[in-house]
Amino acid sequence: MKTKQVIKAAHKFCKPYRVTDGKGFRLKNVDPDDTQGLKSDDKSRAKDLLQFGVAALAELQSKLYAQDRWSVLLVFQAMDAAGKDGTIKHVMSGVNPQGCQVTSFKGPSSEELDHDYLWRCKKHLPERGRIGIFNRSYYEETLAVRVHPEFLAAQKLPERCVTKHIWDERFQDIRAFERYLSRNGTIVLKFFLHVSKEEQKKRFIERIELPEKNWKFSSADLKMRGFWDKYQAAYEETIRETATKSSPWYVVPANNKWFTRLVVAAAVIEALDSLDLHYPNVDDAKLAELAAAKDALLAEK
Amino acid sequence: MKTKQVIKAAHKFCKPYRVTDGKGFRLKNVDPDDTQGLKSDDKSRAKDLLQFGVAALAELQSKLYAQDRWSVLLVFQAMDAAGKDGTIKHVMSGVNPQGCQVTSFKGPSSEELDHDYLWRCKKHLPERGRIGIFNRSYYEETLAVRVHPEFLAAQKLPERCVTKHIWDERFQDIRAFERYLSRNGTIVLKFFLHVSKEEQKKRFIERIELPEKNWKFSSADLKMRGFWDKYQAAYEETIRETATKSSPWYVVPANNKWFTRLVVAAAVIEALDSLDLHYPNVDDAKLAELAAAKDALLAEK
Repeated sequence: MKTKQVIKAAHKFCKPYRVTDGKGFRLKNVDPDDTQGLKSDDKSRAKDLLQFGVAALAELQSKLYAQDRWSVLLVFQAMDAAGKDGTIKHVMSGVNPQGCQVTSFKGPSSEELDHDYLWRCKKHLPERGRIGIFNRSYYEETLAVRVHPEFLAAQKLPERCVTKHIWDERFQDIRAFERYLSRNGTIVLKFFLHVSKEEQKKRFIERIELPEKNWKFSSADLKMRGFWDKYQAAYEETIRETATKSSPWYVVPANNKWFTRLVVAAAVIEALDSLDLHYPNVDDAKLAELAAAKDALLAEK
Repeated sequence: MKTKQVIKAAHKFCKPYRVTDGKGFRLKNVDPDDTQGLKSDDKSRAKDLLQFGVAALAELQSKLYAQDRWSVLLVFQAMDAAGKDGTIKHVMSGVNPQGCQVTSFKGPSSEELDHDYLWRCKKHLPERGRIGIFNRSYYEETLAVRVHPEFLAAQKLPERCVTKHIWDERFQDIRAFERYLSRNGTIVLKFFLHVSKEEQKKRFIERIELPEKNWKFSSADLKMRGFWDKYQAAYEETIRETATKSSPWYVVPANNKWFTRLVVAAAVIEALDSLDLHYPNVDDAKLAELAAAKDALLAEK
């Protein structure tokens, strides 16, 4: 497959799931089972496609790194067992780790709680030329923190900062933060891996039944499942409020892992392709410098 | 190739270059052209071998990550154009980037110069379960800083800390630092990619002649080449003074890139294999928890 074809395929796979304007967005309009007509029988074709995608991604990333101007932040959010870790692994293995860094955000430490909520994330933003991946992110601030009031209480905010406007303020602050990043050369793509409640149940039971998957399961996951509807509502509003043209959300059907990976790879390829990446240009001064260096090397005894 | 065979091959490839006791080590005893008898015609066999190695590495890393106890620090040092970046790319692409982080150390910033020399490196040590890669490292403190006295002057040390013993003190401090790390679960492997002066010249000229490689060359590289012998002497003494059983140096022949990669992959595989990695054990309490969770899931309406 030629690069051009890969780009074209990428466009086709990711476009239906991109949200650039939250107005009117409803989660129920995205089917977690959707595979764009690809059947499970096509799994091996999907695997081939992903392989082409990963190769294209590696090539684009190599230019991103050499050009050293843009950076890319990929944010992954999802309910447990939706496939965040596996997607990161399968889409990004193959990319040079020198240009790619993954940060997993767990519950905040006491040092982190002693700061504003973006503080810990800002420390891990990708340098120019790099792809940064956030496995969970500051979006937990309008998701988990919204669903569980005790998390907000733990943030030690001055009382008068906690009003009924707090979630609207957070949406506004996050939009402003991402606008600032995009104005300064960091492209932000946000992925919500959209799994159904039934499929999560299946995957939890699998983790319980397969000894080699046991370590991935904690009964805390089950507790979170108890808040399913509240989480879905929080996701829907978060996506409505923070999807923008420069920092879109992708709401990715996640009941079929092979399809999730394809869509995520496609979205990253398309975003990188849009940056018009190229190896650094060499100007006349640099050319003269190179010529002089060559002479010096050849003149060595 | 089975895992057992890969481990055996890894042992064969890396052992000749491992230095665990610096006494008597001489750089001139390692031939940068050495390939253990593999000829350039065997390149495709070497490529296959590397592919098996990378797959084995990915599997071991996945266990390292799940077990979440040990961490591994790989330090890369070399003269310019010896192949550090390419080796990191070819050996570590394929590993899940979620468990692998690369830090490139350039000239220190003014904030970094305001601290002790290990400070900036300590900030980037790998978390438990991760592989950390230092592209250059604190070893520059007994290499570049030793060869260029102006770098030492820039460190703003109190006068009485700068004595004729400073390099011996640094060796001792680095040994103690790595001993501390290994006692606390971080395995440190150090790689010196040993390229010949003639081969560096060839690679520099290639970077000058091939437009797509131009951006990799700077005339500062040529200036550093002028200090070749001083650097070789500094490397030799650094390796003699800091090679230990728990934190060995690998002096890797680097005139043939395909061979360098094979040796580095082999050394990492062997180190990971020695850690007796396994997916986390599940105890009785956890098993009871899992059973209860399964019952709850199946009882859902």
